[in-house]
Amino acid sequence: MQKKLGIVLISLAVTTGALGQAAHYIDPMLGVDGGGNTFPGPSLPFGMIKPGPDIGDNKGNAGWKAKGDINGFSQTHLNGAGGGPKYGNILIQPTTGIMRAGNYASPRADEQASVGYYRVRLARYQTNVEITTASRAAIYRFTYPAAEAKNILFDVSHMLSSTNDYGEAQTVVSSSIHILSPTEVAGRTTLVGGWNKQTTPYTVYFYASTDTAATSWGTWNGDVFHEGSKQQEGGVWVSSGAWLTFAAGERPVVQCKVGISFVSEAQAKRNVATEIPGFDFDGIRAQAIAAWEKALSTLEIKGASEQDLQVFYTAIYHTMLTPVDRTGENPVWQSDEPYYDDFFTLWDTFRSSGPLLTLIAPDRQAQMVRTLVDVYRHDGWLPDGRSGNFNGRTQGGSNAEFVIVDAYLNGLPGIDWETAYKGMIKDAEVSPQDQTREGRGGLDDWKNLGYLSIEGVDRPASKQMEYAADDFEIAILASALNHPEDHAKYLKRSQNWERLWDEQATDGGFTGFIWSRHRDGTWKTPFNALEGCTWGGDTFYEGNAWTYSTFVPQDVAQLVERSGGNQNFVRRLDAFFAVPGRYDVTNEPGFLSPYLYIWAGRQDRTADQIRAILANSFHAGRQGLPGNDDSGAMSSWYAFGKMGFYPNAGQNVYLIGSPAFPEVSIHLGNGKTFVIEAKNVTAENKYIARAEWNGQPYTKAWFRNDDIMRGGRLVLTMSAQPVAWSTGDLPPSSSAKSKTQ
Amino acid sequence: MQKKLGIVLISLAVTTGALGQAAHYIDPMLGVDGGGNTFPGPSLPFGMIKPGPDIGDNKGNAGWKAKGDINGFSQTHLNGAGGGPKYGNILIQPTTGIMRAGNYASPRADEQASVGYYRVRLARYQTNVEITTASRAAIYRFTYPAAEAKNILFDVSHMLSSTNDYGEAQTVVSSSIHILSPTEVAGRTTLVGGWNKQTTPYTVYFYASTDTAATSWGTWNGDVFHEGSKQQEGGVWVSSGAWLTFAAGERPVVQCKVGISFVSEAQAKRNVATEIPGFDFDGIRAQAIAAWEKALSTLEIKGASEQDLQVFYTAIYHTMLTPVDRTGENPVWQSDEPYYDDFFTLWDTFRSSGPLLTLIAPDRQAQMVRTLVDVYRHDGWLPDGRSGNFNGRTQGGSNAEFVIVDAYLNGLPGIDWETAYKGMIKDAEVSPQDQTREGRGGLDDWKNLGYLSIEGVDRPASKQMEYAADDFEIAILASALNHPEDHAKYLKRSQNWERLWDEQATDGGFTGFIWSRHRDGTWKTPFNALEGCTWGGDTFYEGNAWTYSTFVPQDVAQLVERSGGNQNFVRRLDAFFAVPGRYDVTNEPGFLSPYLYIWAGRQDRTADQIRAILANSFHAGRQGLPGNDDSGAMSSWYAFGKMGFYPNAGQNVYLIGSPAFPEVSIHLGNGKTFVIEAKNVTAENKYIARAEWNGQPYTKAWFRNDDIMRGGRLVLTMSAQPVAWSTGDLPPSSSAKSKTQ
Repeated sequence: MQKKLGIVLISLAVTTGALGQAAHYIDPMLGVDGGGNTFPGPSLPFGMIKPGPDIGDNKGNAGWKAKGDINGFSQTHLNGAGGGPKYGNILIQPTTGIMRAGNYASPRADEQASVGYYRVRLARYQTNVEITTASRAAIYRFTYPAAEAKNILFDVSHMLSSTNDYGEAQTVVSSSIHILSPTEVAGRTTLVGGWNKQTTPYTVYFYASTDTAATSWGTWNGDVFHEGSKQQEGGVWVSSGAWLTFAAGERPVVQCKVGISFVSEAQAKRNVATEIPGFDFDGIRAQAIAAWEKALSTLEIKGASEQDLQVFYTAIYHTMLTPVDRTGENPVWQSDEPYYDDFFTLWDTFRSSGPLLTLIAPDRQAQMVRTLVDVYRHDGWLPDGRSGNFNGRTQGGSNAEFVIVDAYLNGLPGIDWETAYKGMIKDAEVSPQDQTREGRGGLDDWKNLGYLSIEGVDRPASKQMEYAADDFEIAILASALNHPEDHAKYLKRSQNWERLWDEQATDGGFTGFIWSRHRDGTWKTPFNALEGCTWGGDTFYEGNAWTYSTFVPQDVAQLVERSGGNQNFVRRLDAFFAVPGRYDVTNEPGFLSPYLYIWAGRQDRTADQIRAILANSFHAGRQGLPGNDDSGAMSSWYAFGKMGFYPNAGQNVYLIGSPAFPEVSIHLGNGKTFVIEAKNVTAENKYIARAEWNGQPYTKAWFRNDDIMRGGRLVLTMSAQPVAWSTGDLPPSSSAKSKTQ
Repeated sequence: MQKKLGIVLISLAVTTGALGQAAHYIDPMLGVDGGGNTFPGPSLPFGMIKPGPDIGDNKGNAGWKAKGDINGFSQTHLNGAGGGPKYGNILIQPTTGIMRAGNYASPRADEQASVGYYRVRLARYQTNVEITTASRAAIYRFTYPAAEAKNILFDVSHMLSSTNDYGEAQTVVSSSIHILSPTEVAGRTTLVGGWNKQTTPYTVYFYASTDTAATSWGTWNGDVFHEGSKQQEGGVWVSSGAWLTFAAGERPVVQCKVGISFVSEAQAKRNVATEIPGFDFDGIRAQAIAAWEKALSTLEIKGASEQDLQVFYTAIYHTMLTPVDRTGENPVWQSDEPYYDDFFTLWDTFRSSGPLLTLIAPDRQAQMVRTLVDVYRHDGWLPDGRSGNFNGRTQGGSNAEFVIVDAYLNGLPGIDWETAYKGMIKDAEVSPQDQTREGRGGLDDWKNLGYLSIEGVDRPASKQMEYAADDFEIAILASALNHPEDHAKYLKRSQNWERLWDEQATDGGFTGFIWSRHRDGTWKTPFNALEGCTWGGDTFYEGNAWTYSTFVPQDVAQLVERSGGNQNFVRRLDAFFAVPGRYDVTNEPGFLSPYLYIWAGRQDRTADQIRAILANSFHAGRQGLPGNDDSGAMSSWYAFGKMGFYPNAGQNVYLIGSPAFPEVSIHLGNGKTFVIEAKNVTAENKYIARAEWNGQPYTKAWFRNDDIMRGGRLVLTMSAQPVAWSTGDLPPSSSAKSKTQ
């Protein structure tokens, strides 16, 4: 509690009068520790530059680590990623004294972050570092001890690193730097590798300018320091950089603004000139706060605790850090389309953060979908993950299908649906050269056998479930774009999931689970319901048989039937959540699972599970997230949970959960407002007793985006006892629909 | 005890009748854990191929780790190195089942090593792996489960790895592999980086041949597996390799022999053909045992415990693993001289392992010195460290001077002394481009000021002490080669160490310590006697003021005087060893320190300290070494300690310590034998009561190599009480010598 208050007070202290209702609740340190891997530095919404500290062994996915000294501040970071780190380019570090080969890391003190602002004291140099940022340029304010020679070091060979797990580590393949004048340094760094196993290099250019003229300077190459040199090149594993030295005894503050670009040094310089023309640190900071206030202002919460507001608005903040807007910064092809990068990955985000942005930032979501289509247009494949202008890696499936169809059903504008559709068909029909980069592996089996065999592809059972769901998305768009034969074909393929339903598989008293088969049709033996994620293994990815036996978003009705009917399905879900080791909130395949009770008529059990998971796994503070934020996926799942509804992505369906706030207003892009009111809501009053939509009784536990977009008010009266209020239609299921057609 | 017996029994069981007296005591697992970083796989003395397991995160300096699964078996390793790992090239792994992208690591069971032999069970594949080796080719025996498809995987992108600490990590920059026939695979891997920060790539070629014909095969590139393909290329961070598959149901054993070369695939193939013409695994193993028996037969020990013999002979073994003999395998220049690689580093090894090899393997030591001179001849600099045909990195100083002069004083044959001398003069006079690669940094200060300033170079105080000692070595060879002016010049420079003797520095009641100064002559403040090793720092490397205030091997007499005379010097040494944090046995700068009491007339205190350090810090077992073995440096210090004497390297002087064995016979290269007998020696009887040399009373606590080389017998009668037996001349000191001249 003391910590939260501290952060709030700091923010208030420096932004008197400028703050709105939402942005000051953001805690950039939430989730930085304990595996959340969130980024603690300042960033604008979807901002390209992300300046922040790189610490200790440089293996933190967002640079930051709980222990270790600060090696400096680099300009590119991800938020909430796992695996081998990416980025950490163009390191800046203030130092004092003589420059020569060695380790410039410093212990830190007094580390603080608030929206658009990060500060820390480097104890070794008795120097304070403050950072704020615009979208493609940032500004640093260094306050040195007056009596010492002051340096700023620019390291173009720095990066976040990891061991070589088959290309997950990064490598700087070349770099260069030059001192343009006593106040200007520019250069670039070119890398391969990183989590998405990039083999075509990416380059980060930079241009930096100081408000004070250096009195001396130099460069280094390897361990050789060249006093007075202005130009340096580096190679594979050859460290390279430059420094500026400012005379002792001058004023203690030196400010340095730095712009980056993925196109050229000239563009990096223009980015600085456009976004940070002077050295008005406090003005840039005020603009950053205002940008976040605007971004968060679509969501208005009433009656929530300060702590809930902090966790909630920070969650929304996390969904807007990546992907990043690099429109005009694409070095690979010329296009008038928007260009976003750092999709980490669609498999993670299609379920919840995509749908959330569709509601609260539809213009951004439309731009991202246009980017995906443009990637297909020029690279030949829709990406699943993409970073550094390079597709990779696919996760459980390759799920751009969901994102595109979700956009279509929500009426996002400006998207070339025919081209998007072609990309989806290619995913579904053409075997990629490298299935870890893009597309779907094992397609021959999928097309010939109707299931993925152990011999045909790795992790066949989880891919089977994803491909079936993906094909359902294709069927939706096929119908909409008037391709009736495709519609029938892919609808049929969407039922393929049943071919991996092993009716003999038994665990914990339940029979019938998704499992994997050999090409000759025999099942893998023995059945192991808890066999987990093995990269390259022959069953599941980031889930087990319990989890994937609930992942049929296109046809929950048939899943319920397979599971023995409503009562058995509810018992199975209860057992799934009750026994440790079965359900894992930190991985996305189970995101929809707590909402499945609704198809069996037990919306109250959904309320139970959602409330329990939110209370147990999401908190304020540095260890507030239960696992990698996965580029906002975890955060958006939390945010929907607190608001009381959750999307069944790609179907224009929202399921009603258990709202935790007395009132949430969503100010929609069309000027209307949709309000969810939860009367009498408390920790105990978690059940819905009755519902009213615009004053009329409402008996369905779900609704559609169209319902929201008309504006209006959903009033849920909450109770401490479960009530069978949702007596209306069940949410759609593909088999139920085809039966009625 | 049980473990040791187990190892002995295994060795005996498989080598009945073939064993001599020494090799079967070798425990290749001694020191693999707890930071010793010794290499557990089979190797011949100075053998080029070192096949062994790479485990877990692949960050073990010798591949092995206590925890983690086995990723496979690579063919190149170091012994006892620290910092960022090097090598780990050409990985071979047996697997079963379908080959596709993924992780092929397996848990291990039943891991055992004896001289020339390593075996382990890969639990995941139910497959046993056995390895034995020749000098440039090794042979693997895989015993698979009969019912499964059997594979051998060859990974040319594998390597040992670490995070990017400015180039210490390795990077594969390209690789290729091709399947020549159903029994033959060949290829290469090309890398930069590694601990010595190599920027010119090195390439390891290989040729492998199996005793069974494969029935199918394929290659991979990145995560894409190409069934039936025979050729593959890899790039930076692009994994690449090939596999052979042998039909299930055939005989369960497949043998695979693999040769490596640093020149060509053709030479790798010749290395296999020459060294392992057939598939006689047991015969190759017997040859390896015989080679070690021959190498160790120069040292005969009588009356020692089994455990002492194990630790002692394993120490000798460790001094003969690296450098490696690559004569005829130098890809950089043509020469008729011998060619050794993997000097890790002369700074570590000149003190004890070089002198030990001079005694017990003088032909090898001569070849290594010839290599150093040839490196100077072609690369322009004598190396300090060298690996992958690339100089780097220098440690405290650049100490080839010691190794060369030690060879000269010991009469090693075939060395071009004039060229060697030129290389030494270059070290002393020409500033290198990159002082971390070769040569001496800060030479301008050294020549102009007579001391290294804080402003002029990093770690100036420890370098100062090394340069002074190095210059003394030059003075010796200058005199021998009849350069009297050089002799006078470098003898004078060897006294420079006194310029960093800070008479005001005080710690623990002692005044006067080696410390560092600014260019203006003022001392660094405040004095901190425990300031330790900082790479790039401005005082010491791998030592502190206490340690370096004892490192004046060229003039201990003057050091005693500086320290306040005999009594104060003895008190200071006592305090140095007594207070934790001052003395560190794991770093080489303090190797000579326990023997310094001799110059103050207290040989008994040397006996005390040596016995205490040996008992406390060296043991049998996997954690038997106190720190990195440093390419045999630690092991050789231990071995001399147990034998009862220790070299003052580069001066042809041995100091008498406290023998721990009743009798040691050194069978010299000239056919004579030198024996040290320690009458009545026990743990308590550690002091020398009297000494006799060939039956005549001996009253000096030191002797010269010439004394040894004549053969003879030194009989030391041991006692539980200290006796003032060494009443003769003190060992030489440069100032004492010049006073008498």
